[in-house]
Amino acid sequence: MNAVRVGLLGCGVVGTEVVRQLDIHSDDLAQRIGAPIELVGIAVRRENRARDLPVDPALFTTDAASLVLQNLDVVVEVIGGIEPARTLILSAMEHGASVVTANKALLAEDGATLYAAADKHGVDLYYEAAVAGAIPLLRPLRESLVGDKVRRVLGIVNGTTNFILSRMDASGASFTDALEEAGALGYAEADPSADVEGFDAAAKAAILASLAFHSRVTAADVHREGITEVTTADVVRAREMDCVIKLLAICELSDDESGVGVRVHPAMLPRSHPLAGVGDAFNAVFVEADAAGPVMFYGRGAGGAPTASAVLGDLVAVGRHRVSGGRGPGESAYAQLPVRPMGESMTRYHISLDVEEKPGVLAGVATVFAEHGVSIQTVRQEGHASDATLVIVTHRASDASLAATVEQLRRTEVVRSVASVMRVEGS
Amino acid sequence: MNAVRVGLLGCGVVGTEVVRQLDIHSDDLAQRIGAPIELVGIAVRRENRARDLPVDPALFTTDAASLVLQNLDVVVEVIGGIEPARTLILSAMEHGASVVTANKALLAEDGATLYAAADKHGVDLYYEAAVAGAIPLLRPLRESLVGDKVRRVLGIVNGTTNFILSRMDASGASFTDALEEAGALGYAEADPSADVEGFDAAAKAAILASLAFHSRVTAADVHREGITEVTTADVVRAREMDCVIKLLAICELSDDESGVGVRVHPAMLPRSHPLAGVGDAFNAVFVEADAAGPVMFYGRGAGGAPTASAVLGDLVAVGRHRVSGGRGPGESAYAQLPVRPMGESMTRYHISLDVEEKPGVLAGVATVFAEHGVSIQTVRQEGHASDATLVIVTHRASDASLAATVEQLRRTEVVRSVASVMRVEGS
Repeated sequence: MNAVRVGLLGCGVVGTEVVRQLDIHSDDLAQRIGAPIELVGIAVRRENRARDLPVDPALFTTDAASLVLQNLDVVVEVIGGIEPARTLILSAMEHGASVVTANKALLAEDGATLYAAADKHGVDLYYEAAVAGAIPLLRPLRESLVGDKVRRVLGIVNGTTNFILSRMDASGASFTDALEEAGALGYAEADPSADVEGFDAAAKAAILASLAFHSRVTAADVHREGITEVTTADVVRAREMDCVIKLLAICELSDDESGVGVRVHPAMLPRSHPLAGVGDAFNAVFVEADAAGPVMFYGRGAGGAPTASAVLGDLVAVGRHRVSGGRGPGESAYAQLPVRPMGESMTRYHISLDVEEKPGVLAGVATVFAEHGVSIQTVRQEGHASDATLVIVTHRASDASLAATVEQLRRTEVVRSVASVMRVEGS
Repeated sequence: MNAVRVGLLGCGVVGTEVVRQLDIHSDDLAQRIGAPIELVGIAVRRENRARDLPVDPALFTTDAASLVLQNLDVVVEVIGGIEPARTLILSAMEHGASVVTANKALLAEDGATLYAAADKHGVDLYYEAAVAGAIPLLRPLRESLVGDKVRRVLGIVNGTTNFILSRMDASGASFTDALEEAGALGYAEADPSADVEGFDAAAKAAILASLAFHSRVTAADVHREGITEVTTADVVRAREMDCVIKLLAICELSDDESGVGVRVHPAMLPRSHPLAGVGDAFNAVFVEADAAGPVMFYGRGAGGAPTASAVLGDLVAVGRHRVSGGRGPGESAYAQLPVRPMGESMTRYHISLDVEEKPGVLAGVATVFAEHGVSIQTVRQEGHASDATLVIVTHRASDASLAATVEQLRRTEVVRSVASVMRVEGS
């Protein structure tokens, strides 16, 4: 049987592991594919860097553009970022190669172009590693839950922020201290903004929403808030509610099923929710579908070896297609559901107000909620006299109504200050 | 585009839901497959039974054998059991139909025959619904983790027993009371033996082991112990260890990678393990792979709608192949790893001994362990004088050595009785 010719673009943390595992598992992979894998070349930025990898050093090249023209069966792209990854992928497809990529940014920005090229040239496009690393998640969404109607996807899809929030919850650490610890342990990069500002999670949310709702959703469609403003006081307030704070990627069908909401923000989640126990740098994605009910996927969302595991799973799938024919699923965007503005998202707020302790305060505050059609689920008063706090949890309402309520509370005389506002999800 | 012609075998709890969801989601399914689904016939046992289903009553037939000859693209088999399901499936394949089945018993007994027929006739065999109902689990094992080396699969794959054990843990109920409650809530059948004796879980374990280790494993290969002898005292002892008792399906590669162990039995599991929090009738499967690390899948393992969700996901996959060519993965049994006897399984024991409280008792007991090469992790003595109990937890040892240790303890003079023995997993 002819070998499956593979070109690898990128040899960083993930690429290195891909090379190692291709070597370790070469016999098994050949059996599972039905043909051996031949690594034809590895495109790197600096050719002369010392690498301790079980491959012929002659395979390394800085000329990625030529590598993808080498009559390849599969191109594995683990460079990341938009360019040159996109140009290389499109060139590879044009020359008949299927593509396995871990590139969430590119898929979230311009997945449609990649899909169109794959279709045009009759090749595969697989990207299990792009979301939640080692966790088999995209294939289940694309292929297993595809006979069902997905209502909502609730995901912890960024390990760095989950580590930070888990530390803040467990030890009472501040955001800054927890971020420093994450950096020391290798869970946060030198510039952590893509993680802590929610950009990474937003790209993944776009990919998940596209698959779950058979619609085109890009990163720009995603409402995004990071965790830099989560305080130790927020963590304490969450604990008082028997909740934990998580950075959630939320993709949901609107109540009337005519649109989708896609958002990333920190939220309080009841400790009884299956996602609440997902600690450290683990990822997990909770899917609610009409017939299946709740389904959860859990595992390592990042790191060289876990990501390489996902890449190699895709490589086997694509390799099998090369050997025995067939293609994996293409883009499924027939539903064309529009992404609704954040204001239309239905959610719940947890609001802490510093108020003056005098008769009529609660009535005044309650009136503000009522005027915006927001109904209150619970109110708790803490402290007395000049130090009184009202803790209010609302029922489900549109984010716009909730935001307007908060805005008016800030201007309400009996309210000395709005101490905190956080969304509550998963109940 | 020509319709995908589907024949449905069986119209019980699952079949009914398949019919309903085919109706509800018909437009979406057509878009996702690329062709509409045409339900050609529904084979039932009793034609005249009243059914409130959105299909032409003329579709019902008691002649399943003729239905599978009707030039079908796909046969969906949800009858269950070995015969007539096997004969019908083989006949359908012979006549060119791909097969989607939820039949764990048949796959665990004779999956190889089905695979061989699928190969011979160039058709698909999909069975996501056979294990853990709605949870996308088999496709991830067959297709996502296929580039990795799976070391162990630890599963809660039977909802009835998980409900019973969860109730015993939460309320202190006896096995009998919890079983009765399960029956009242529809979680246990009139004859619960397939569930509580572990037969159902053993069939699923065989399927999981086959996929995880690319080897042929049948239900007869699985060491099986049920939960009927789990007592309230066992539950209390587990709690003292900060453990919970679960019926686990365990499939593992031997330490030297030359064989596999497949077993179903109740075991203590630390409450900190991700599987420990899986309550009620939920299922979850925890997979440990070399590169991916730990991965967990969680959801509803049974019930009409969840099982139908898995069936329809498979139906879309098979339908896509009919429309655009290609076939799903066939049997992958190249590794041909033998199933090792239970005695070679490496595990840990929790043992409670009623002993006489006198000097030298511990030394005498410890000697018995040492003679069998079993090392002790912890010993705790409870009570005094004639009422003393030794609680011993061992390190990892072969099940044969552990069993021989227990056998000799029963014959040891200072041991008045062996009060309980339970395996400890997941640590």
